[in-house]
Amino acid sequence: MALIVQKFGGTSVGSIDRIHHVAEKVIAARHQGNDVVVVLSAMNGETDRLIQLAKSVNSEPNSREYDMMVSTGEQVSISLLSIALLARGCPARSLTGIQAGIKTDSSHKKARIVDIDPSRLRKELNEGRVPVVAGFQGFDELGSITTLGRGGSDTTAVALAAALKAHECQIFTDVDGVYTTDPRVVPQARRLDRVTFEEMLELASLGAKVLQIRAVEFAGKYNVPVRVLSTFEDGPGTLIAYEDTRMEQPIVSGIAFDRNQAKITIRGVPDRPGIARFILGAVSDRDIDVDMIVQNVPSVDKTIDFSFTVQRDDYKSALELMHAAAEELEAKEVLGDDKIAKLSIVGVGMKSHAGVATRMFQALGDEGINIHLISTSEIKISVLVNEKYTELGARTLHSTFGLDAPPRDEQTTKSTK
Amino acid sequence: MALIVQKFGGTSVGSIDRIHHVAEKVIAARHQGNDVVVVLSAMNGETDRLIQLAKSVNSEPNSREYDMMVSTGEQVSISLLSIALLARGCPARSLTGIQAGIKTDSSHKKARIVDIDPSRLRKELNEGRVPVVAGFQGFDELGSITTLGRGGSDTTAVALAAALKAHECQIFTDVDGVYTTDPRVVPQARRLDRVTFEEMLELASLGAKVLQIRAVEFAGKYNVPVRVLSTFEDGPGTLIAYEDTRMEQPIVSGIAFDRNQAKITIRGVPDRPGIARFILGAVSDRDIDVDMIVQNVPSVDKTIDFSFTVQRDDYKSALELMHAAAEELEAKEVLGDDKIAKLSIVGVGMKSHAGVATRMFQALGDEGINIHLISTSEIKISVLVNEKYTELGARTLHSTFGLDAPPRDEQTTKSTK
Repeated sequence: MALIVQKFGGTSVGSIDRIHHVAEKVIAARHQGNDVVVVLSAMNGETDRLIQLAKSVNSEPNSREYDMMVSTGEQVSISLLSIALLARGCPARSLTGIQAGIKTDSSHKKARIVDIDPSRLRKELNEGRVPVVAGFQGFDELGSITTLGRGGSDTTAVALAAALKAHECQIFTDVDGVYTTDPRVVPQARRLDRVTFEEMLELASLGAKVLQIRAVEFAGKYNVPVRVLSTFEDGPGTLIAYEDTRMEQPIVSGIAFDRNQAKITIRGVPDRPGIARFILGAVSDRDIDVDMIVQNVPSVDKTIDFSFTVQRDDYKSALELMHAAAEELEAKEVLGDDKIAKLSIVGVGMKSHAGVATRMFQALGDEGINIHLISTSEIKISVLVNEKYTELGARTLHSTFGLDAPPRDEQTTKSTK
Repeated sequence: MALIVQKFGGTSVGSIDRIHHVAEKVIAARHQGNDVVVVLSAMNGETDRLIQLAKSVNSEPNSREYDMMVSTGEQVSISLLSIALLARGCPARSLTGIQAGIKTDSSHKKARIVDIDPSRLRKELNEGRVPVVAGFQGFDELGSITTLGRGGSDTTAVALAAALKAHECQIFTDVDGVYTTDPRVVPQARRLDRVTFEEMLELASLGAKVLQIRAVEFAGKYNVPVRVLSTFEDGPGTLIAYEDTRMEQPIVSGIAFDRNQAKITIRGVPDRPGIARFILGAVSDRDIDVDMIVQNVPSVDKTIDFSFTVQRDDYKSALELMHAAAEELEAKEVLGDDKIAKLSIVGVGMKSHAGVATRMFQALGDEGINIHLISTSEIKISVLVNEKYTELGARTLHSTFGLDAPPRDEQTTKSTK
């Protein structure tokens, strides 16, 4: 008998009908011989409603009280699902974050889980019940209710699966898995049967918003197999796990792209130690996140060019900061461009395959797409291109790395069990 | 420096504007030098909304899950008031029933408080904060959330005042105090400055729905002075307490009436031991509450007549039960009347005044009002009359016992401080 954790998001519990549907899915998993722990988000729209209510009293509500408020959203949904399960004769009991033993730090609105005491959950399981746990919430040392921040229910599910050493953590959502790229841009995109944690991290951070990145980090750290599934369609979904038993490892697993990018370059900075820290420090002091960072070797005049990318919202303020920094550093000039996009190929397979980068650049060059910036890691190569080439670039790379081919079939018949 | 517990009902926190208004009142009480603990109900209509949501999943939702659901109503209002207080620079912290240490039994939906651990509340007070406590809820031995049943927020407030040995428990509501009788029926009705716990119990149980009867019992048991006040108008309200320093004790404090009554009489029951238990047992086995009970002495033929009253909803079923019982008891006949009302005079003063009953019956008789049934206690005399005489009877008694006179003024200038 396997233990699985099933997490259902806000859309999945967005109406009474859907709550009944979720109850049926939970019962089906039990009938397959599994022990089930359920984690729920608030009903779709409920968290926003509560936030608006808090803000209607004060535009910047106290964080502890904000958490007290919004945590009621999940409390309502776990109660409703438990009522639905019990009405079907399935033993169930709803548990708030406190009752489920989810201890966090005291960073209200963005708390981090520090420990889970699984004894209550084990007790409920041993007595044959389905614990229905409020996602997104926990409690701190003072016994105050905390929330993990948006999307935190995924993290709750993975953390409970880790604490209970569950067989699998199933994340039910409104898509049927992780795709090779965005199907709205590349119609040939297809669902992946498997993807590694590292790949998923790169895909998630680059805009494949199926799973919260914190949940993926957590799953990787504690080696919790995570399966992304659709609440509304049957299917095996995508398994996110370390080991990969596929006979033939694909070189590239997916293509990510991000239009929300702006590039800033400081040219002709006299080369001396601490330059990078000076430049990036000015930006990060203002809480601006930097994504790609590129610095070339010094030129013959002993100066360097330093480039980085930020989110477009931060473009103007970052540019101002760099003009001030350039003056202080006696740099030649500051250049900026906010009409760019980032294209990335992601795959653990590329670690052992030479020439992947060359193939990528060649394919883009053949289409006349100029590359502004290149950044590489073990399992990812990202390039900056003009924004207008986003779709063409994504389709070209998707086809170049064989992702358009029909789905591999060694995994597609595997059930979610 | 006095400690006061202030409880605000659903109407008082029914909108964002009203929550701001409550915040001002709490701050005003602190500015008068008091420590304040606040107890809140859910926003008006919210509890009903949550109950409907639970019932939309299953018409008879599991009681534990029902409590998990409806307890979120108070959690929202305590959060909102705390946000409003903090925004005004008043240190405050919301506390759920669990956090406030309110231990109950496990009777979900109608739990009883078994103990209060006031340590957390004292800590917040010592640190200069206003604890804002969710009324109507607590937790049982399993750590499950329980609710005290409708109107339980009054009980929470009184129980906290008892546990903290508060100077006073102030119940803010939409009326400005306890009245001598219903002002809609008797325009001469006036607010009482003081009333005893015993009187309040009789007035509350007879339809003066200002305070929950359980809260009054609790207040009397632990000798907690309770003041009923209006949230929306300034004024001293009505103090409910044991000791009474009034120079001249009024004989009668108030007139209560209840139209929701029906009378059943079994005539000619052979007199033998256990008759009363047999008759009333049949009724109470069906969870029908009996109010007045009257049995006369046996008549010459060794039979007795036995009468009692029930709520009108229960009239038909009670009558059927009595027809069956009458057959078994070989009684002569069963009579019923559901066009009756109960009129009561209430006052601790009548204990030491002979002839109060005589004055009552005389006054009603002078108006041609026939009395069907009489029942007396230490501080109350109730009579059943034809329903059509309800208003006339109430006005007559109100005037007969001097309640129409202008308010006594030895108390009216006393502040709520």
